[in-house]
Amino acid sequence: MSQDPAPAFPVTDRNRVRRAHERGRYDHEAVFAILDAGLLCHVAYVLDGQPYGTPTIHWREGDMLYWHGSSASRMLRHLQQGAPACLTVAHLDGLVLARSGFNHSANYRSAMCFGTARIVGDPADKERALEAIVERYFPGRQAALRPTTAQEVKATTVVAMRIEDAAAKVRAKNVGDDDEDGSHPVWAGVVPVRTVIGEAEPSPRLMAGIEAGAELDAYRPGRELGAALAGLQRGYEEAAGRQERPAGIAR
Amino acid sequence: MSQDPAPAFPVTDRNRVRRAHERGRYDHEAVFAILDAGLLCHVAYVLDGQPYGTPTIHWREGDMLYWHGSSASRMLRHLQQGAPACLTVAHLDGLVLARSGFNHSANYRSAMCFGTARIVGDPADKERALEAIVERYFPGRQAALRPTTAQEVKATTVVAMRIEDAAAKVRAKNVGDDDEDGSHPVWAGVVPVRTVIGEAEPSPRLMAGIEAGAELDAYRPGRELGAALAGLQRGYEEAAGRQERPAGIAR
Repeated sequence: MSQDPAPAFPVTDRNRVRRAHERGRYDHEAVFAILDAGLLCHVAYVLDGQPYGTPTIHWREGDMLYWHGSSASRMLRHLQQGAPACLTVAHLDGLVLARSGFNHSANYRSAMCFGTARIVGDPADKERALEAIVERYFPGRQAALRPTTAQEVKATTVVAMRIEDAAAKVRAKNVGDDDEDGSHPVWAGVVPVRTVIGEAEPSPRLMAGIEAGAELDAYRPGRELGAALAGLQRGYEEAAGRQERPAGIAR
Repeated sequence: MSQDPAPAFPVTDRNRVRRAHERGRYDHEAVFAILDAGLLCHVAYVLDGQPYGTPTIHWREGDMLYWHGSSASRMLRHLQQGAPACLTVAHLDGLVLARSGFNHSANYRSAMCFGTARIVGDPADKERALEAIVERYFPGRQAALRPTTAQEVKATTVVAMRIEDAAAKVRAKNVGDDDEDGSHPVWAGVVPVRTVIGEAEPSPRLMAGIEAGAELDAYRPGRELGAALAGLQRGYEEAAGRQERPAGIAR
């Protein structure tokens, strides 16, 4: 365990940011902040030479990333022996309109994480990981749910990937025109984009008297989803620090 | 050219939806609607056996997908000879809270498109494609910009990929609990999520008297980004139908 106050991923040929490299960061804090502000990720993997980019939901424990799916899934079955993968989370924050076509851009935050994806084989580890995904996104909810059956655990595959190297890339500024273009008479600037939470829609079959629990407190209508998810991750890590770490969530 | 009123992509071993296959669709309309509602895509590709999932901006002309980047980009350089790729667009529409952990889910729309990515080599074709990206997102803007220089065209790589096969996958409903879980006393339902446009932020160097043009009309604050982008695509296609199709935008 490093005592470095700003732990970072190694910079390798795989994760080094080549294009607009001043936007790149390799420290854990920058990478984790982008991962934790998103629910949706894309997992890139190769099957018989063909690349696939599959959208799915991820969750994070330290430098371990998890995702899950059906045990019948093609993406997941081929990981049995461990397979190289790239998990990417990207947030679009704005459209950047410049005075030249070339300087048009987007504001964004992205994290690309590389490692070897492996199936969580032990049933108890898997069950604990499946509880972790609920708790990470909906704190305190797991205990209130109808318990998971053995058949459900069997039907689900959980994948874990330790982040071996990663790169965060961020553009977060107004337009970057060439100096001499400043006087070109066309509007320039940023159209910001936000992903926000809406009003919760209860199940039409909800029994009378059942109210949403504290697990929905973070999801206030109008709030930015990324802020809610990032806050929930911090709470989840604090809760994990107060109790024995689940065995399925190895560091 | 097929006269089929609902043209569809072939179903192959590569794009067949295995998991929750009732959510899968292969018709052009379903795939294009998801592609057109997004600006941000993820391109999955393989380099020396390592999968990468790179977020970027795409645009579409018929069944051709385009993206671009720096000519120095690792992702783009290796495509010179043509390379298999998978371009995915995914929209998160909601978090689905069920009465069991197993039935928790997300509402989403995703399109995975497979093909062979190739660099647009001809400089004139490339220049026209670079104008297309501006026009597709900001109609009428290209003519008002400082013209693109030869050096800028040279510094940019444009990639084109004909969609050989593709699959759309959509979940758009309230919670799907097991019937017998309906009476379990926990809140269940959907927390919707929307990506919306904010108030435009002009360049701090904007000259006095310069107002945003009609190309920003679609980006009204509070409007859903996907609706704006889909409408712009329809407008772009109509405009393209009225004039000779640019040579760089082959069908």
